[in-house]
Amino acid sequence: MQKGLFVTFEGADGSGKTTQLNLIKSFLEEKGYDVVVTREPGALELGQKIRNILLHYEGTVADRCEMFLFLADRAQHVETFIKPAINEGKIVLCDRFTDSTEAYQGYGRGQDINLLKDLNKIAVNGTEPDLTLLYDVSTETAQNRVGNEKDRMESAGIEFHKKVRNGYLELQKENPNRIKLINANNSIEKVFENSKNIIIKLIQEKLGE
Amino acid sequence: MQKGLFVTFEGADGSGKTTQLNLIKSFLEEKGYDVVVTREPGALELGQKIRNILLHYEGTVADRCEMFLFLADRAQHVETFIKPAINEGKIVLCDRFTDSTEAYQGYGRGQDINLLKDLNKIAVNGTEPDLTLLYDVSTETAQNRVGNEKDRMESAGIEFHKKVRNGYLELQKENPNRIKLINANNSIEKVFENSKNIIIKLIQEKLGE
Repeated sequence: MQKGLFVTFEGADGSGKTTQLNLIKSFLEEKGYDVVVTREPGALELGQKIRNILLHYEGTVADRCEMFLFLADRAQHVETFIKPAINEGKIVLCDRFTDSTEAYQGYGRGQDINLLKDLNKIAVNGTEPDLTLLYDVSTETAQNRVGNEKDRMESAGIEFHKKVRNGYLELQKENPNRIKLINANNSIEKVFENSKNIIIKLIQEKLGE
Repeated sequence: MQKGLFVTFEGADGSGKTTQLNLIKSFLEEKGYDVVVTREPGALELGQKIRNILLHYEGTVADRCEMFLFLADRAQHVETFIKPAINEGKIVLCDRFTDSTEAYQGYGRGQDINLLKDLNKIAVNGTEPDLTLLYDVSTETAQNRVGNEKDRMESAGIEFHKKVRNGYLELQKENPNRIKLINANNSIEKVFENSKNIIIKLIQEKLGE
């Protein structure tokens, strides 16, 4: 059976990536494709249990412990959900994946970026996205969209989100074939048009349709 | 403050390592040392929660997910328990540590041994044992001690335990300074005598006493 496709959606909260994921899903389903939507972290029951530990643990959780717990969630998600779906010929749309870890924990929180990249490679065990859509939006616009007012934001908060944004842009430069940059300051319609064109091109290249 | 020591106890179930650990603990306490006993996996509350996931999860847990969960437990144990105790000048005696993962999951179950070594290095983040006592015993003796009768053992079971034993011996050859081999076929008294002499030498070298 023809293998499916694996597409990940990345960007800040407020970038509109989840809205675009759902529009792409509807578009592809209308075209007759078998589409599966998922997300990280915590898409599966086991991932939820792992997240519950992190959310409800009263003591301090060591950075490296947290990192390994996220990787455990990812390894399970890939092995028992994403890979089988791709092998069944489905198009898998995933809201956040490895680039989120590298942008947020690496560039944002200052954890060792090369270590995170190496560990992500081990966790995904060969199941890399065919395409990543990166929704780039100014940090101010993203913050406004998620409902924070500028005067309520701490400067550390803004600085963190700027580091994350720059991290994403850095990752895109390192992986120009896989990660496609989309200007998400535009209207939903315009952003969807751009997203759709990139997906159509991928389907033509990879599935020959 | 003078740093303490970190000593790990390794070997098959039935090798007598836990008995020896407790004898060493009493001996050192009588000498006036501040001794802390711990074990892997699951010494801490967070480690117990992680183990509960593995024990009570009804679906299949992917190998790499399980591996990362064990590493999360280890990272937490080292960072929040072992390292602080060493820094307070205590002698930490730990029943099983990184060598168990490499011997059982690596040599025993055939997981990528170099990958496990790399990941262990990341999990311990510099907190390596000063000394590892490896209690080596014939697989048959170990099995008899844990109460299995030979005719009840499946050949796969024996083969697995032989691979683990050979794995331990391989690790000892690679790390002759850290890992000291002790013939655990001998009597408890003789084995304790050997263990004690090695520990006394270490204390003289490292603590200058």
